[in-house]
Amino acid sequence: MDGSSTSEHQLDAATRLVRIDENTVSGATSDAYWNLNGPFGGVVAAILLRSILEHPGKLWDPVALTVNFCAPLKPGVFRIRVREIRTNRSTQHWSLELTQDEQRCVATATAVFAQRPQTWRHLGASPPSAPPPESIARLKTSQLNWLEQYEFRFVRGAPQLQARPAEHSLETLSHFWVNDAPPRNVDFVSLAAFCDTAFARILHARGALVPLGTVSLTAYFHCSSADLASLGFSPLLGVADTRIFHNGFHDQSSELWSRDGQLLATAHQMTYFRDPRVN
Amino acid sequence: MDGSSTSEHQLDAATRLVRIDENTVSGATSDAYWNLNGPFGGVVAAILLRSILEHPGKLWDPVALTVNFCAPLKPGVFRIRVREIRTNRSTQHWSLELTQDEQRCVATATAVFAQRPQTWRHLGASPPSAPPPESIARLKTSQLNWLEQYEFRFVRGAPQLQARPAEHSLETLSHFWVNDAPPRNVDFVSLAAFCDTAFARILHARGALVPLGTVSLTAYFHCSSADLASLGFSPLLGVADTRIFHNGFHDQSSELWSRDGQLLATAHQMTYFRDPRVN
Repeated sequence: MDGSSTSEHQLDAATRLVRIDENTVSGATSDAYWNLNGPFGGVVAAILLRSILEHPGKLWDPVALTVNFCAPLKPGVFRIRVREIRTNRSTQHWSLELTQDEQRCVATATAVFAQRPQTWRHLGASPPSAPPPESIARLKTSQLNWLEQYEFRFVRGAPQLQARPAEHSLETLSHFWVNDAPPRNVDFVSLAAFCDTAFARILHARGALVPLGTVSLTAYFHCSSADLASLGFSPLLGVADTRIFHNGFHDQSSELWSRDGQLLATAHQMTYFRDPRVN
Repeated sequence: MDGSSTSEHQLDAATRLVRIDENTVSGATSDAYWNLNGPFGGVVAAILLRSILEHPGKLWDPVALTVNFCAPLKPGVFRIRVREIRTNRSTQHWSLELTQDEQRCVATATAVFAQRPQTWRHLGASPPSAPPPESIARLKTSQLNWLEQYEFRFVRGAPQLQARPAEHSLETLSHFWVNDAPPRNVDFVSLAAFCDTAFARILHARGALVPLGTVSLTAYFHCSSADLASLGFSPLLGVADTRIFHNGFHDQSSELWSRDGQLLATAHQMTYFRDPRVN
């Protein structure tokens, strides 16, 4: 580690990978992104995406990424096996496995990269109207390390956690500004992490902390590396909501908008939860 | 093949698998579900899910399924390698590869199965209001084999294909009744296929047929085998819309509701398209 690493952003440090062979890299978990019971899922998604972005056979930009969280990562080293499954004229398919303790699989992922021609475009969705982030107080967070790596400024739907779950479902829709703290230029690594920054909707619905964890996260990217480079470290505007909480799982969908109204990514997930009132 | 197969539903025939060893099955493409350039993606998703449902190590019901379409299947036989990645107390993770010509990967998939306890429930989404399917004429379809295996009855947003794309985007939201033709009791195999029955939104937006294909499909299941068994062969009410068409890909999200207002599944996909006006 040389002197320049003292100014390395925590996200770069937390997603840093060492190549073992063409299709294997290793890394180590970062305390900075620690969540309740393992690393923040977004940083795991970022690590997995970065393992493809740095693969010597990688072509083009990511279009879709799915991460399945099989178990919490333990503190320490991990390995990722990166397999290029098939490369066509304009799409490239990848399959990944993240393991610890030699063989034990902790996460799987698949990804599609593509060469994206200029075509007809249409934006059907609209960004929510939101006051500028500078006008909103930063959400105070001190419970979990990973929260300290982001600045959240809620336009609506900030989590309001009480000691006991509410009787009826509270509002589940959130609009929020989010950026890395300290700021970092947006790229696909950070965008993958941002795709998991919307808090699990069960916290909003119940107004209380219950056991929870993402089991499967899918991110779709609607931008190029060049689009992201032009953003600098501008905050992103997030939208998150859910459709259903049912028998231990809820769905969740998010949008991530640039400050100038580009839809950069959409993300969907199924999240495990346990509700202390019932079981 | 014995005499009983004469009454076998086309979907059962099209998804029939023969076990080669514990983790390998084989099947064959079905003309009945042929699309423009390969089988209907929904039947491929159904085949992949069925390969787990019939695996001797399978526990519980599916919660999430992601299918990545690497290339069109060619007519003929295929193999699926089914790997149980990790089984925890209440979740089971799977990874699949569908190949043809011995080694060539045509599709990958991952799935999460889970034991779902009864917990707090909340349905935030609402089914669209829709007249009963019996009151709506069946969509006339004759161009593609797979369309003949379903009855589509559009409440709104039926595709209106013209010879030339529209100048501006047309409406992309659809509400539709869909059921197997002939009717078949709903189960996870058919539900996985239903998750891809919403037509690609580029057809709706452009009002014309352009080259297209799903690259990645994710389905989330919000019901149990028992919930599905109680439905019989009742039609499902589908909702489909998109957020963005951008440089050769568009996203798409769907809901599938039972006639009595249960949200059975949600599905998301990224779909490739090419627009003849630009390239």
